[in-house]
Amino acid sequence: MSARPATGSGLGGEQVEGIRAVEGLLAAGRRRVRSVWLAPGRDDHSRHDALERLAAANGVRVRHVDRSRLMAEARTDAPQGVLARAEPVAPADFDALLAAPDAFLVALDGVTDPGNLGAVLRVAGAAGATGVVIPRHRAAPLTPAAVKAAAGAVEHVPVAVVSGIPAALERAVRAEVWTVGLAAEGTSSVFDLAVADRPLMLVLGAKGRGLARLTRERCDLLAAIPMPGAIDSLNVATAAAVACFEVVRRRGASPPPG
Amino acid sequence: MSARPATGSGLGGEQVEGIRAVEGLLAAGRRRVRSVWLAPGRDDHSRHDALERLAAANGVRVRHVDRSRLMAEARTDAPQGVLARAEPVAPADFDALLAAPDAFLVALDGVTDPGNLGAVLRVAGAAGATGVVIPRHRAAPLTPAAVKAAAGAVEHVPVAVVSGIPAALERAVRAEVWTVGLAAEGTSSVFDLAVADRPLMLVLGAKGRGLARLTRERCDLLAAIPMPGAIDSLNVATAAAVACFEVVRRRGASPPPG
Repeated sequence: MSARPATGSGLGGEQVEGIRAVEGLLAAGRRRVRSVWLAPGRDDHSRHDALERLAAANGVRVRHVDRSRLMAEARTDAPQGVLARAEPVAPADFDALLAAPDAFLVALDGVTDPGNLGAVLRVAGAAGATGVVIPRHRAAPLTPAAVKAAAGAVEHVPVAVVSGIPAALERAVRAEVWTVGLAAEGTSSVFDLAVADRPLMLVLGAKGRGLARLTRERCDLLAAIPMPGAIDSLNVATAAAVACFEVVRRRGASPPPG
Repeated sequence: MSARPATGSGLGGEQVEGIRAVEGLLAAGRRRVRSVWLAPGRDDHSRHDALERLAAANGVRVRHVDRSRLMAEARTDAPQGVLARAEPVAPADFDALLAAPDAFLVALDGVTDPGNLGAVLRVAGAAGATGVVIPRHRAAPLTPAAVKAAAGAVEHVPVAVVSGIPAALERAVRAEVWTVGLAAEGTSSVFDLAVADRPLMLVLGAKGRGLARLTRERCDLLAAIPMPGAIDSLNVATAAAVACFEVVRRRGASPPPG
């Protein structure tokens, strides 16, 4: 019983679709994989063959099905002829994420679109963020669309679920983690992020609405992405990319103390 | 006749869906708008009202339809209760884009997904890029999905269509525009982009396949985005965001000469 998360507390992620996501699932080897389905089609044959070898090496059964059978099971538009079933992704412990000396967290406030959640996870995974923090909106946020957009990142990036972002900000402050809200009205620029090499939690809001009032008030600082062009907003994944890779740039430029 | 692009040479963009995209269309006032359709629903009422006032101020007829009628006409999944019809977006002249002293172009090599094209346009529009360059793959690349993802940027960012990216790179070199390919195998880091404040064309490939051989060979330099995490790739829109906003950061930091 202890190894199985209680129903409703899991993050989801049991159905994995798309070549990159299934490659990531098998290569990481962190979750038990029940089965991999492959369907022939116009997709990348060499990558299908590689997936099949990877599955065999991990002792995972591969079922060859026809395209219509796979599409009937798929829950994304373009599963690229591959689908896997695995145990759910286990949530991470938020306090443990806050305690890491190199903490680099990305908190999402009100991001409900699964594609956006997955795209932010992929950005976080590439930038080396140490975790993503989401509020408890739904039972299983890692839908097939989120897992596919994450392109393997759900296997690597710890995801913590909190009761709400304002409360999470209080806990971050107590843990001496700097909290930086990305907001158009921010008084500093994300390019002047002096705290980038300190334990850090970036907070991003949903496209269109920005950060909730209480979230804005509880952040240590609000930083804006300078946008010199005619368009004055980015979607949450591209905003996360700009902010996370600014942290990468700064942490790369200044070696950690000690 | 001269004001109407020949059939097949336009970029598309006649059908505009989603609140931000229609707001952008009406606010920019650069294309004749034939009609705006609004359908009631659970979407943002105040923004619908604002759209209606904006349409009236521009002399554009608003039709109130029921949700099922609008969804029958819509070609994206979530038009947010609003749809407009307008003249097509006119293509920009590539040589004119190259000749601009502050040229900051984004060329896409093999990006066929409309959502990705639109997301890159939005990034380019926010970063103040002076144009986007795409190869002539299709008659009308600005599908409703691309226009919606661009969130108004199709009204502002000039889009040039070229016969192919390798030939476009030759023309850029002759025009003394620096060409920088984003590639994992790049020998320099995108964070060391000394040419960022020079006339510049960034070249990005489609997710998964990267840049074509001939494209890689013809770029003045290949730059990689450092990815310290477990995930070793970004999608094209988030990669564009990192590279474009690095240009913003550098151009902001060093005032233009003269």
